[in-house]
Parts: sequence; structure tokens; C-alpha cells
Amino acid sequence: MPRPSRSTPLFHPEPEQIDLLEILHALSDPTRMTIVQTLAASPERACGTFPVHVAPSTLSHHFRVLREAGLIRQREEGTRRWTSLRADDLDARYPGLLERILDASHTASPSPTS
Amino acid sequence: MPRPSRSTPLFHPEPEQIDLLEILHALSDPTRMTIVQTLAASPERACGTFPVHVAPSTLSHHFRVLREAGLIRQREEGTRRWTSLRADDLDARYPGLLERILDASHTASPSPTS
Repeated sequence: MPRPSRSTPLFHPEPEQIDLLEILHALSDPTRMTIVQTLAASPERACGTFPVHVAPSTLSHHFRVLREAGLIRQREEGTRRWTSLRADDLDARYPGLLERILDASHTASPSPTS
Repeated sequence: MPRPSRSTPLFHPEPEQIDLLEILHALSDPTRMTIVQTLAASPERACGTFPVHVAPSTLSHHFRVLREAGLIRQREEGTRRWTSLRADDLDARYPGLLERILDASHTASPSPTS
């Protein structure tokens, strides 16, 4: 499959098209959750600056899932791609949902055995 | 693989083992979301009484995913299996999360095109 040129507009769903099940699916992966947690603490970040340890192609896939679910917005500026959280759009569509999920994500992970 | 006998105890995670990402994954499927919505409105139901239209083996799979994620509790009584929502356990572990997701699930679905 040809690689889309840098000038191809990136798909972002309109706020009213944001689907709950797609959001839940997007956030059910630990790398994608880390990306969203990181963005919740900073307005906009360049793509190489996230604290995740995955191959670039895997990272691109995760960004695409998050973008197509409506969780993040990406824009290109020169050779860099900038990413931000669509917190306002999400809150307008599903009030309080993202905040509650992020709160829950800061709860201690399950203990392996007790 | 041998089918487990009816006397095999069903696995239910302890409340402190309930994992957020597993919950999000479990709820990202429309059939499983319908099961949880249905249970939120009724204390306990027999397995054949859910308004979903999938094959019995598929339904069993969905119940297992929900049970192992900690969203539902199942018990056997004679030849019937009864299912209930673990709302209290979930609320103790992730306060307000399930309620917020269920609220969001009642928001209108995205329009196909506008």
C-alpha cells in the first residue's frame, strides 16, 4: 500500500461522531492509555516525546487509533507532527467521562498476588 | 479442549484485582455493553433473558469476558446460571466510573452522515 503523502489531511471525527465504544477500545491498551495520560498533563507534544517504548510503526498505529476515535488531534508543522488531547470535544459529547477514566487510571494497578 | 463440568467454580477476580484496561476492553463491544446496560436495570437475570441476538457460544464468550474483567458475577442454581452486575465492587475500586460510562452509553449514537 502506498504510504500517504505528508499532505494527506489527517482524519478527525466531528465531535458528534465520537463513539463511546471506540473510545473505550482505544483506551483499553496500555500504550494508548499512557499517551492520553501524558497529553492530559501537557497541552501539545511532538510525536517523539512520549514516554512509551514501542517501534515507530507501532506508535503510529496507536496514534491513528486514538485520532480516529476522537481522543486526540494531530497537526503537522514542517517536518513535525504535534498531538493534543481533544478534552473539550470529549467533555461536550460525554461529560465527565474522560476525567473519570483518567482518575481511575491513577488508581494502583492490581497486585500480582496477595 | 474438554468442556469444563458444571461443577467447576467460575473465576471471579477479587475487587482489588479488577483492572481498568480490562474493564474498558470488556465494555468496548456492543453486545457486552447491552448486557451491562440490561443488568444495570435489574438485580439478577437468567442467562437466556438478555436482549441480544448472538449464538449461545458467542454469548458464553461475552459473559466470560465480562466476568473475568470483574464486571459481572455469575452463580449456578440447578440448571440455570444467574448473572448480576458487580456495581458495588466496581464503585469501590473505581468510584463513579461505571455510572459515567453507562450515562455516556445512553447518549445518542453518532449519526451515519450529516
